[in-house]
Amino acid sequence: MTARKAAIVGGGVIGGGWAARFLLQGWDVAVFDPAPEAGRKIDEVLANARRSLPSLYDTGLPGEGALTFSGSLADAVAGVAWVQESVPERLEVKHKVLADIAAHAPADCVIASSTSGFKPSDLQSGVDDAGRIVVCHPFNPVYLLPLVEVVPSDQTDTVIGERAVAILEEIGMRPLVVGKEIDAHIADRLLEAVWREALWLVNDGVAETHEIDAAIRYGFGLRWAQMGLFETYRIAGGEQGMRHFLAQFGPALEWPWTKLMDVPDLTDDLVDAISEQSDRQAGDLSVRELERIRDDNLVGMLRALKKTGWAAGALLNTHEQLNPVTDECGLVETVNRQIPQSWTDYNGHMSEAHYLEVFSQATDHMMQIIGADPDYIASGFSYFTVETHIRHLDELVAGEGARVLTRVLDGSGKKLHLFHELLKADGTRVATGEHMLIHVDLETRAACPPKPAVADRLTAYAAQHATLGLPDGAGSAIGKRG
Amino acid sequence: MTARKAAIVGGGVIGGGWAARFLLQGWDVAVFDPAPEAGRKIDEVLANARRSLPSLYDTGLPGEGALTFSGSLADAVAGVAWVQESVPERLEVKHKVLADIAAHAPADCVIASSTSGFKPSDLQSGVDDAGRIVVCHPFNPVYLLPLVEVVPSDQTDTVIGERAVAILEEIGMRPLVVGKEIDAHIADRLLEAVWREALWLVNDGVAETHEIDAAIRYGFGLRWAQMGLFETYRIAGGEQGMRHFLAQFGPALEWPWTKLMDVPDLTDDLVDAISEQSDRQAGDLSVRELERIRDDNLVGMLRALKKTGWAAGALLNTHEQLNPVTDECGLVETVNRQIPQSWTDYNGHMSEAHYLEVFSQATDHMMQIIGADPDYIASGFSYFTVETHIRHLDELVAGEGARVLTRVLDGSGKKLHLFHELLKADGTRVATGEHMLIHVDLETRAACPPKPAVADRLTAYAAQHATLGLPDGAGSAIGKRG
Repeated sequence: MTARKAAIVGGGVIGGGWAARFLLQGWDVAVFDPAPEAGRKIDEVLANARRSLPSLYDTGLPGEGALTFSGSLADAVAGVAWVQESVPERLEVKHKVLADIAAHAPADCVIASSTSGFKPSDLQSGVDDAGRIVVCHPFNPVYLLPLVEVVPSDQTDTVIGERAVAILEEIGMRPLVVGKEIDAHIADRLLEAVWREALWLVNDGVAETHEIDAAIRYGFGLRWAQMGLFETYRIAGGEQGMRHFLAQFGPALEWPWTKLMDVPDLTDDLVDAISEQSDRQAGDLSVRELERIRDDNLVGMLRALKKTGWAAGALLNTHEQLNPVTDECGLVETVNRQIPQSWTDYNGHMSEAHYLEVFSQATDHMMQIIGADPDYIASGFSYFTVETHIRHLDELVAGEGARVLTRVLDGSGKKLHLFHELLKADGTRVATGEHMLIHVDLETRAACPPKPAVADRLTAYAAQHATLGLPDGAGSAIGKRG
Repeated sequence: MTARKAAIVGGGVIGGGWAARFLLQGWDVAVFDPAPEAGRKIDEVLANARRSLPSLYDTGLPGEGALTFSGSLADAVAGVAWVQESVPERLEVKHKVLADIAAHAPADCVIASSTSGFKPSDLQSGVDDAGRIVVCHPFNPVYLLPLVEVVPSDQTDTVIGERAVAILEEIGMRPLVVGKEIDAHIADRLLEAVWREALWLVNDGVAETHEIDAAIRYGFGLRWAQMGLFETYRIAGGEQGMRHFLAQFGPALEWPWTKLMDVPDLTDDLVDAISEQSDRQAGDLSVRELERIRDDNLVGMLRALKKTGWAAGALLNTHEQLNPVTDECGLVETVNRQIPQSWTDYNGHMSEAHYLEVFSQATDHMMQIIGADPDYIASGFSYFTVETHIRHLDELVAGEGARVLTRVLDGSGKKLHLFHELLKADGTRVATGEHMLIHVDLETRAACPPKPAVADRLTAYAAQHATLGLPDGAGSAIGKRG
């Protein structure tokens, strides 16, 4: 293979996304787009990609490649291993641009088209030396979503199709080779079907756009992000799997539910084909196992959406307010929760970082109790953790209930010295967390004393907790008992 | 409102899911289902729900309600505030069951039907006192997915519709009130459209089920889990928004892309309606802001799928192997990465728990380097962290590069005493992590010495690192400088 260099022809949202993905995966990229704003648009996509694509990895990426804007198509494609065409979806425009690319690009390079609608044979028609042309249809945002539909025609060189798959895998994508070329490939056939139905719903005044979006993102959208259509329905079929689902759901196909009524006959052959394909797809996994995988995926994704405060995550954040934790027994109960499966390691034990996540939750709650709450923080002051000491005494598994009891060891001056005990439901001590926080002015980020209302509440808690004596484990250093 | 008690009539996957959601949100539940296996099936759904629903919350849930199985429908519905009918989708069966429920249920209770296809007026037809009947169509798994389509008919009492919404919100769901009753409501119209198109693709031999699932879950499924259809396309329209998208995409509606060709005319009125609805939906958020929200959601969800090792997450885990970290300069570089936005707080600074996540990643990598790798762990031995001491010296923001350099302070006997330094790209020290780990037999979970190969490598690293002297900050306790 030649150099890790790609040419991007057409620099809109899709071309820019391709440029960003190649660059961040270490490829040099030459962009050709005569539009006056192309440079600005690519830069904006690239800025988005730089802040998000590396976040997907727990390792560093290869160093970013070099980005150049070429004055001519011939300059852009010189010496590249990959050309990506992303010009408007008009066949005459595609033909002209692909003919130009074919005339100037290296003999062994992949000439990929981002077309969402045209078959590769449509694109190749009338273009000289068109065996290098293959459809590689990505999804926006190209720098984050892994899917690429790779569609060769009979005329596409086999080696080009294979090279395309290898390169797409190298830049982190999921090439889906479509063996039989059809208009709109696979994904856009499905998207078109939904889009038409959605237009009818708006047209007929059944639902507004935000209601249709809600019907998707609070429901089946969450299923589809991780399992797709058939695997989801396999589970819906319960213990008897896909064939049972088809038997249940088949009749509904003939009901007058949609505006679009041309329905394939559910012949025995079609039922057999779908059932057998679904069996192969599931491999050794039972429906029971698939259910648990699905649930773990959903919990992880929903918890991610809680952090961004979006869609179903925003809903959970609001609903959670209905379940406040309460004070008790001199010490303050700052956490009372169940351990999520997304917090556990391959053995089902809560992994290390989440001990600090629980203690951090306890600290946040204690801050609220003494009045260093979101309003106080919005007024420009907060506490920052400067030091943490965790001792592990026992283990927690997914699903176990856990509580944290918190005491204030010192609340004088700028200090907030906390001691958290993490307990199982039966009272067994699982871990302790000792934390020193310092009160800061968020503007200068320098230490300063808290406002009187906070200082007073803190002093009262510290005095009350001092009567309990120093807890076992406080004040110790690693490897030395305190 | 009466007691927090619900009757579940029909105990399959959907009825069981309703039972689990009500129970875990503190409601008492009476199930009526004469099928012999109903009890076992409900118990299995409930077991799944108990391990996953509480994981969505960072607080405790209300105590679980009492579950009873009733011998008659009349017993089940006595004194309840909610009846959920989830019997098979046959109108004559629904009519009979709903008439029975209406005859025995309290006068002020909500009688909700899980039907995915029938209009509420179809269900009410011929049933006495049917003003209490409203469609409440949920999505599997009912205990995790928040969407419920709430569809009243003209005959449904207004107060019943309002009470249904309030109760569904109380149990953590997202009621979507559908103002105009149609067959299959909203979501199943969309699902049907996709299902038919997918059946054609299989029928015509274009794609197998796993390929269709891949086309969804590696691509648009991830978009739909958080934004739905219209908001996603609004972004695809770029800076000019929805109207521009419609202008671009409109013509494709008339192309022969799907088997189902009855397409609404994109009249000026329809374009206006969609554009105005989309503007309202976006509120004050610009396309640029929506893009960043979308990217943050995608990163969070994809990182969640990395943890479960599923779909796009499995792909990332594999792809990440292409970017290994390397050793250098006496100390061991155990982490080299960018800080994800999903790791930061409202100020954009890396939040506390993720400091330990980084150090934990460093510890795992150091374990691999000394030979305590996944194979070693699979052979029955590992290191467990018993103590952690973190000092915060500076801050990291989203998108910053960060490295960890690791040294072995002590590797004698059962001990693994590590000292990690977290550095910015320019070498500034951001935090230190000092960790004591103990080597354990995973079967007995008791301490024991490591195997010779591991012990030897550890001794070599400890000797090499001892020549560097004790690092600043090692061996200190909270509030005392070491």
